[in-house]
Amino acid sequence: MIVIMNSSATPADLQAVLQRVSEHNLTGQVTQGEHCDIVGIIGSGITNDLGSELESMSGVDRTVRISQPYKLASRAFHPQRTIVQVGNVAIGGDEIVVIAGPCSVESETQIVETARIVQAAGATLLRGGAYKPRTSPYAFRGMGVKGLELLALARAATGLPVVTEVMTPQDVEVVASYADMLQIGARNMQNYYLLEEAGRSGKPVMIKRGLSATIEEWLLSAEYVLAQGNPNVVLCERGIRTFETATRNTLDLNAVAYAKRLSHLPVLADPSHGTGKWHLVTPLSLASIAAGADGLILEVHPDPDRALSDGAQSLNPHNFQRLMNQLATIAPALSRTLGTVAMLEGLPTHAKIA
Amino acid sequence: MIVIMNSSATPADLQAVLQRVSEHNLTGQVTQGEHCDIVGIIGSGITNDLGSELESMSGVDRTVRISQPYKLASRAFHPQRTIVQVGNVAIGGDEIVVIAGPCSVESETQIVETARIVQAAGATLLRGGAYKPRTSPYAFRGMGVKGLELLALARAATGLPVVTEVMTPQDVEVVASYADMLQIGARNMQNYYLLEEAGRSGKPVMIKRGLSATIEEWLLSAEYVLAQGNPNVVLCERGIRTFETATRNTLDLNAVAYAKRLSHLPVLADPSHGTGKWHLVTPLSLASIAAGADGLILEVHPDPDRALSDGAQSLNPHNFQRLMNQLATIAPALSRTLGTVAMLEGLPTHAKIA
Amino acid sequence: MIVIMNSSATPADLQAVLQRVSEHNLTGQVTQGEHCDIVGIIGSGITNDLGSELESMSGVDRTVRISQPYKLASRAFHPQRTIVQVGNVAIGGDEIVVIAGPCSVESETQIVETARIVQAAGATLLRGGAYKPRTSPYAFRGMGVKGLELLALARAATGLPVVTEVMTPQDVEVVASYADMLQIGARNMQNYYLLEEAGRSGKPVMIKRGLSATIEEWLLSAEYVLAQGNPNVVLCERGIRTFETATRNTLDLNAVAYAKRLSHLPVLADPSHGTGKWHLVTPLSLASIAAGADGLILEVHPDPDRALSDGAQSLNPHNFQRLMNQLATIAPALSRTLGTVAMLEGLPTHAKIA
Amino acid sequence: MIVIMNSSATPADLQAVLQRVSEHNLTGQVTQGEHCDIVGIIGSGITNDLGSELESMSGVDRTVRISQPYKLASRAFHPQRTIVQVGNVAIGGDEIVVIAGPCSVESETQIVETARIVQAAGATLLRGGAYKPRTSPYAFRGMGVKGLELLALARAATGLPVVTEVMTPQDVEVVASYADMLQIGARNMQNYYLLEEAGRSGKPVMIKRGLSATIEEWLLSAEYVLAQGNPNVVLCERGIRTFETATRNTLDLNAVAYAKRLSHLPVLADPSHGTGKWHLVTPLSLASIAAGADGLILEVHPDPDRALSDGAQSLNPHNFQRLMNQLATIAPALSRTLGTVAMLEGLPTHAKIA
Repeated sequence: MIVIMNSSATPADLQAVLQRVSEHNLTGQVTQGEHCDIVGIIGSGITNDLGSELESMSGVDRTVRISQPYKLASRAFHPQRTIVQVGNVAIGGDEIVVIAGPCSVESETQIVETARIVQAAGATLLRGGAYKPRTSPYAFRGMGVKGLELLALARAATGLPVVTEVMTPQDVEVVASYADMLQIGARNMQNYYLLEEAGRSGKPVMIKRGLSATIEEWLLSAEYVLAQGNPNVVLCERGIRTFETATRNTLDLNAVAYAKRLSHLPVLADPSHGTGKWHLVTPLSLASIAAGADGLILEVHPDPDRALSDGAQSLNPHNFQRLMNQLATIAPALSRTLGTVAMLEGLPTHAKIA
Repeated sequence: MIVIMNSSATPADLQAVLQRVSEHNLTGQVTQGEHCDIVGIIGSGITNDLGSELESMSGVDRTVRISQPYKLASRAFHPQRTIVQVGNVAIGGDEIVVIAGPCSVESETQIVETARIVQAAGATLLRGGAYKPRTSPYAFRGMGVKGLELLALARAATGLPVVTEVMTPQDVEVVASYADMLQIGARNMQNYYLLEEAGRSGKPVMIKRGLSATIEEWLLSAEYVLAQGNPNVVLCERGIRTFETATRNTLDLNAVAYAKRLSHLPVLADPSHGTGKWHLVTPLSLASIAAGADGLILEVHPDPDRALSDGAQSLNPHNFQRLMNQLATIAPALSRTLGTVAMLEGLPTHAKIA
Repeated sequence: MIVIMNSSATPADLQAVLQRVSEHNLTGQVTQGEHCDIVGIIGSGITNDLGSELESMSGVDRTVRISQPYKLASRAFHPQRTIVQVGNVAIGGDEIVVIAGPCSVESETQIVETARIVQAAGATLLRGGAYKPRTSPYAFRGMGVKGLELLALARAATGLPVVTEVMTPQDVEVVASYADMLQIGARNMQNYYLLEEAGRSGKPVMIKRGLSATIEEWLLSAEYVLAQGNPNVVLCERGIRTFETATRNTLDLNAVAYAKRLSHLPVLADPSHGTGKWHLVTPLSLASIAAGADGLILEVHPDPDRALSDGAQSLNPHNFQRLMNQLATIAPALSRTLGTVAMLEGLPTHAKIA
Repeated sequence: MIVIMNSSATPADLQAVLQRVSEHNLTGQVTQGEHCDIVGIIGSGITNDLGSELESMSGVDRTVRISQPYKLASRAFHPQRTIVQVGNVAIGGDEIVVIAGPCSVESETQIVETARIVQAAGATLLRGGAYKPRTSPYAFRGMGVKGLELLALARAATGLPVVTEVMTPQDVEVVASYADMLQIGARNMQNYYLLEEAGRSGKPVMIKRGLSATIEEWLLSAEYVLAQGNPNVVLCERGIRTFETATRNTLDLNAVAYAKRLSHLPVLADPSHGTGKWHLVTPLSLASIAAGADGLILEVHPDPDRALSDGAQSLNPHNFQRLMNQLATIAPALSRTLGTVAMLEGLPTHAKIA
């Protein structure tokens, strides 16, 4: 950490800062600048709280943190990439992973049918919401435990591992008893009790980036899970909130590429929420993979205009299959692979359609 | 709700929309525009989910909601202002309410001393964090139940009602057993289980606006509490996240004035978090009241540069007293009152210092 | 400037940085941290370009600038406040200055009538657009020179000095021949040729903050004018673009208070553009003054629903007079004065209405 | 346009709105909703100014525009894609176009050498700044006409057409006499005199999206050029300003895909400015093309750490060549082509390196 004194700081101010630094068993080294002095602080255990403490002292202009505030999530401390195993699927390796399914679980027919459709097209994990965070208390909020049971039925029917959201610490146990990976939604990215409880569940945890979370805050949320001894964390960029209202959110692919560099954890992208418009999902899916994402999570509904939620951003089966074909085409150009032999055999028209 | 068809929509597309509208027991009325048709939907029970459903139909460009999605929080349905009673303090009336205290409860001496200082200067409620949401898992996260006990001691010593944050549904019961008003923090504004549990506690609930929450989303979070039959909701603007990094957040006083107009609920402002710099707290406090805020929540620490958290944005006792004096001076010019007789007698120098 | 090396930097990388620093006739002083080294650079003439240059060198993580990039606009180099004289009006002193008038000059009757109305209510400068920047090429773009002539007529009729926008360097001469203060609009805050030409005109220059300009960038735009030897610069906050769409922009009163602290230049606020809703103009005007603004610029139209532009955010004469009365009431509480004797005599009902 | 009355509007308010609509020779059609009435306005010549006018009338809550405010830039009115010819290069066709070169022209050697390097790697247009918009008045602002002459020399040496920025209307003539395509920078996206003057030059015009411009505003700026009778407009996304500070800007690839859908004009992406970090340029370049961009504009410097500006985001020749090879690999997977025969022959190792 560096302390920047202001130009009117007195020698006593500087002395007080050095004294305070030594009270924390740290060392301060002064560089005298033209307009002001700076103090470099050396030692371990330097926190943001120390910065706030020093900034409230007389003569201090501001502090600048040098090192990253996260360790377990950092590539600097863990250079090799992490591969998270969810059922029989490896996330973070060379193979592009596609998680697909409806926004909400609505009925046995809907979820089993969708699971079969997305599996046939090459998806290897099933998504579906049983607990839905909704802005309005009057909106459909999911089927709850019944939804979890239906997800389990769909898994039994297809073999696809299941990813579903958990919204509160009390529900972690029941959700973990059905799901293969727990999803922490964007609104809950800084719900720290939930992160820790999810971490303790032993299940892989996918953390969606909050609507206005910095990359650093996102990695610190991962740190909360990792600090519970659970190494199986997957990051998911799902669009940030900006001034632009033409799209529902702004999918931030800078963040995908940068998170891959800063961290060893796998990074997925969610173009369904990231754009909010089904017709933008395909180009942004391709772009996400080209930016380095390890996979996608996509909303697919057998009949989007009958969906109980998020119909406008859901792909129908036809468009999803076209997208999968395009992904299969660009994957090798990016030194990635996609999908299973079943898919390649089952959909011989891939190359032609793309 | 209005459905805007796109210019290439066919008569069959339009017919399908009207058919779908009638399936929902609603009526659609068509206006033929120069480039496209629009359908006005009439009836009750029109939801955002209906909008998403219709937007995924062929030929539909977009939908526009007409009515507000919140009812209980809306001034349209409840024209008279709500006054929330917290202990012996009324929030939302003519008197400006000042809630003050440290970011975190740190010790009995610290919290009792601070309570006495802020009371002497005219604050009528005490704040102090026992459960602290922290971006990093390695930061100080509050004293927990011990902190609640110390807040109760400070209340016993001064008579000031206590406001403190609750972070997770399981903790509502214990926090409500100590606190006079529950605070929902910005990170938890859309933690719906927490909102509902806080609503059921019967205690007044103060909801801080999320870092990137729209005014509408903020009022919908209030709706979650109100829908539990708890009418005692207080809104608190605490700064939004924008591109500007010179200040920690951007205190949005447009939102204070607009929320007062849209809703009957009291609205407070938090210039400590809203600016992140103690030297901006005074001008922004005055501005908040001038914009129509019913009161303030402020971080005051007897010794900010020894605070365990948020020292840089905390007022020391001297600066807090100066601020209170200035508030007392402008209050009558805004047809508001401030504070108790005790304060006016105890600090006879108000008018001179301001 | 501080250079932060990354943790894998080699001694040769560090040596190269020190060598480069000395090529610029600057001195580098190394502090060895636990995870990485930092280099403090000492000397004058340190620029952002140097930062970019160093950041592209091997082993460099990032650079941090220490000193402010502006000098002439900085309070650190010019501690006493600047008072800008526009005709007979002083901006930046104890008196609150109110600039009022229509968005666009539309006719002789409209501008002269408006000038008389705002003068009667206490405004001391007249605004009115002759050249209008419009998002759409098909919108009304102002009357041009004819509009300037009408502004001069309104000044002759009332004695009010005139403030009007100039959009391009070629027009500075003609606009300066009519106007008493040149306005640089938000869209042109970084139109550097325009800033310099306006600076050279010798007229006072009011610089509106750009829609997404940081406070630092705003002060650097002031620096462009000041560097032409023109000390008469007035800053104007007019709302920034954020995610919130309930209001047209977000009036940033943090920035008003902070700019007053960072700079010696007067700072005005524009709640008409800052909110976009006439009913929010009054509370935000009061808030702006309470935050420390030296005055206001307000859109007033004799008949807002007949305005050729910006009707929705214009005050009508009645609401403007009410606002002026409220300002007169709070001004003394903030140790400010408002208006002329003429106003106080002409509107004896002030105190009662407020 | 739709007018939404508020719930307390009187029949007289509604009548006044209908009367006003008919004064504009438009027709209003009323739909009576449960809580409020709406008026659909039919006819041509409906402007945003009409919306503002109506919103200031009694009883009106708000207005909603139905049709796009741009015509010439809209794909609805011009379904086939536009191909802009710049010298011998077609922008907007199947071939991916890469414009490359230094941020600033610094010397004959620098620009000619860079031109040769980027040409050898497959770039087909040369960029280089002669007039540089700089936030600080004390930064290097380009070589001016001398820079234009050096660009012409580099074109003569390589045959690459030249793209360079023009900052003010007076300079359009001289810049157009040297450049093959004029660049309007992000800060000048709403400099309307400049847009029109550039439009009248007859040269192709590339319009960078403003830092906080919506897609609609960007297309309206294109409309300004198109309305001068100049059909040769190229759009360029270069990153927007968001809350995220880890990257210099946030490259908005949603906007690339959406602009391609809304407009027939070619769309390029600028990952150098869009990320501000050279190591993110490659993944975001690939992502831009995958999202549908027609090409890239990239900063390449023979020796980035000696660049007079923007070194930190410039690729060196080695990294640029690697990027070109990767582009050549993914192009066919996206049904695009890249580059000239010269490139394919000159760099036989492409396939192997990628």
